[in-house]
Amino acid sequence: MREYVLQIARQARETFYQIGQASTEQKNLALLSMAKALRGHASKILQANQRDLTAFDTTGKSQALRDRLLLNENRIEGMAQAIEAIASLPDPVGSGNYITKRPNGLRIERVRVPIGVIAMIYEARPNVTADAAALCLKSGNVAILRGGREALHSNLAIMEAIHQGLQEAGFPLHTVQYLEKVEHEVVDEMLQLAGLIDLVIPRGGESLIRSVTEKSKIPVIKHDKGVCHVYVDASADKNKAEAIVINAKCQRPSVCNAAETLLIHKDYPYRQDLIQALLDHNVKVIADEEIRKDFPNLQAATEDNWYTEYLDYIISVRVVDTLAEAIRHINTYGSHHSDAIVSESYGAVQRFLTEVDSAAVYANASTRFTDGGEFGLGAEIGISTQKLHARGPMGLESLTTEKWIVYGDGHVR
Amino acid sequence: MREYVLQIARQARETFYQIGQASTEQKNLALLSMAKALRGHASKILQANQRDLTAFDTTGKSQALRDRLLLNENRIEGMAQAIEAIASLPDPVGSGNYITKRPNGLRIERVRVPIGVIAMIYEARPNVTADAAALCLKSGNVAILRGGREALHSNLAIMEAIHQGLQEAGFPLHTVQYLEKVEHEVVDEMLQLAGLIDLVIPRGGESLIRSVTEKSKIPVIKHDKGVCHVYVDASADKNKAEAIVINAKCQRPSVCNAAETLLIHKDYPYRQDLIQALLDHNVKVIADEEIRKDFPNLQAATEDNWYTEYLDYIISVRVVDTLAEAIRHINTYGSHHSDAIVSESYGAVQRFLTEVDSAAVYANASTRFTDGGEFGLGAEIGISTQKLHARGPMGLESLTTEKWIVYGDGHVR
Repeated sequence: MREYVLQIARQARETFYQIGQASTEQKNLALLSMAKALRGHASKILQANQRDLTAFDTTGKSQALRDRLLLNENRIEGMAQAIEAIASLPDPVGSGNYITKRPNGLRIERVRVPIGVIAMIYEARPNVTADAAALCLKSGNVAILRGGREALHSNLAIMEAIHQGLQEAGFPLHTVQYLEKVEHEVVDEMLQLAGLIDLVIPRGGESLIRSVTEKSKIPVIKHDKGVCHVYVDASADKNKAEAIVINAKCQRPSVCNAAETLLIHKDYPYRQDLIQALLDHNVKVIADEEIRKDFPNLQAATEDNWYTEYLDYIISVRVVDTLAEAIRHINTYGSHHSDAIVSESYGAVQRFLTEVDSAAVYANASTRFTDGGEFGLGAEIGISTQKLHARGPMGLESLTTEKWIVYGDGHVR
Repeated sequence: MREYVLQIARQARETFYQIGQASTEQKNLALLSMAKALRGHASKILQANQRDLTAFDTTGKSQALRDRLLLNENRIEGMAQAIEAIASLPDPVGSGNYITKRPNGLRIERVRVPIGVIAMIYEARPNVTADAAALCLKSGNVAILRGGREALHSNLAIMEAIHQGLQEAGFPLHTVQYLEKVEHEVVDEMLQLAGLIDLVIPRGGESLIRSVTEKSKIPVIKHDKGVCHVYVDASADKNKAEAIVINAKCQRPSVCNAAETLLIHKDYPYRQDLIQALLDHNVKVIADEEIRKDFPNLQAATEDNWYTEYLDYIISVRVVDTLAEAIRHINTYGSHHSDAIVSESYGAVQRFLTEVDSAAVYANASTRFTDGGEFGLGAEIGISTQKLHARGPMGLESLTTEKWIVYGDGHVR
């Protein structure tokens, strides 16, 4: 097992030193070849997916999981188009924003370079295989992929298309490798290989991310849970408040940038209408005592509710006396992901945007916009909830690091 | 013990939410007050330092360690001036380089903000106390400091000056706290407090850094060892090669950016002169078989030598057949810190700078320049050998993170 993983990691490292300097044109050519090969392999991929689905149906797991696993013509076309979109993005490698000539004549530049070997660990959705391969390739990195066991045949069929694309563009096949062995220990062994692998990115549920973070000796970029808030200020516009709260909670409740807690200033005059709007949208409201004076049938909130990511049509609601109390609540109970204020007060907005310690802070907009595409980054590798290296939506640049280049002419200290 | 650390961490977090928005002017005022207070407290600091030195003298440890611990009028003046220099640096907080208006009218900015609560763990040198406090304050962060036990009284006396400076500028004293309890468990407990503390920066020897990295549940930025190389190409200028090799090895052998390995192209015509120059500078040369044909008395290098950071007047030397072999040697055995090529060949230089996977790569200059001051960053928190968040010399910007700020007008998805 260890030998298997070690060999894959060594091949990856070796390949990185070969392809780290590939030009943007070469990389884009490979991406376009990959997209074409995906379309060409569509029927083989669908056959493989059928095998996965047949095996899945015997497990009695949820329909939502089955839907994530399912591929069809449209989804394969979507994968191909996503790769083409990545090809059209600017290449972060080689760009820089620090260049200086020192008094002694040394010329110093700091430029973006690929990180190296990146391992991606994810769950059932086979499209991540194509997506991750394309993002790593575009940023000059070498990828080791590991998808969920349920999607193995689909992923291997997609890998065939990826390899055909690489080959047509003259890239070594080890530029993207897939960990085929399904045993759990394969991943555990891989997470020990600091020095050969530079970065691990887990994508998936909380338990996957926690397990990878705890075991990894390699640096990890996490995409953690989102306990996002909407705070409705005393001065909030009624229509905007209602639209934003409903959108943040209901447009897609299963994702990390959906709102989980609503905070309402005690002097906001349309509190009852806002609660009623949530109820009209079939949202279960878990409320503090102040709200329950008007809606005595609502479930009473406990301390635990303020920490909870429901990912469902459920919301915790609390009335606050001041803006400061709202900010303190968000900084204490939130996950520092995405939080919004609805307010017509310049001062309240400025203070909220400054003092809330989150990756993304919003004035008069839904938290649902936290997304690489919506933020103009083109592609998204994930949404980081950590403060180091990358915070918030991660674009291609997050898959690069920096290098200092110094030009001298016999300079010594 | 746990309660003690927990209280300090909570006070720090609370203070961060108070002072994270301090203006540059306020922070600079506090820094200048701190510098003034240090000068005013000089005699008290020297008395405290005398206590530490007296206790140290009974331990029979090395003179070099004693020198690190020693303070005098000059060194205190140096500390004060270093703080004034930090006050004069540009403030990274609030700066940004991404601002966009999306097609739907959302205005999105990405700006630099303080990281939060930063714990610094270091060894005997008391000047780090003033330095770390100033760097954290300037970047809007709250600091928890923990110096070596040998320097406790000196550090506490310096803390008094720091607190006087904070007070005069209206900052809460908890902006900079010092862990006074000398027990080891205090640090171990602190390293568990992810969520309250955002970042740990260990500064010191390899064992301190390894211990912190292994125990910490909080993200760590490491300043690891430097196995730096100078590669002398076939086309190298004789004078430049000699000057750079001698400088990189001898100017200050005890630091991480000093050279530890010399690689010489087989066709470089002045190989014997270069080895002789090292010997003339009292450098112990540990050489491969090719070198030993001419210098049979030199110690023979083993595989281990290529990995070794001597931090002394010792160098490993190897003859390589090609530039590619030199690059492979550096990427395999090096620590990805700082590596130099001496060459008059445009092609060789370009290839070396691109393919060597290190934080800093040099053409015709000594590796000794890897330093925040030399690179124009003003102050330096350390030199990162990792690829995530910060790589190479870390300036104030490395003590900040990013935040996405979104301005809408009722926008929903």
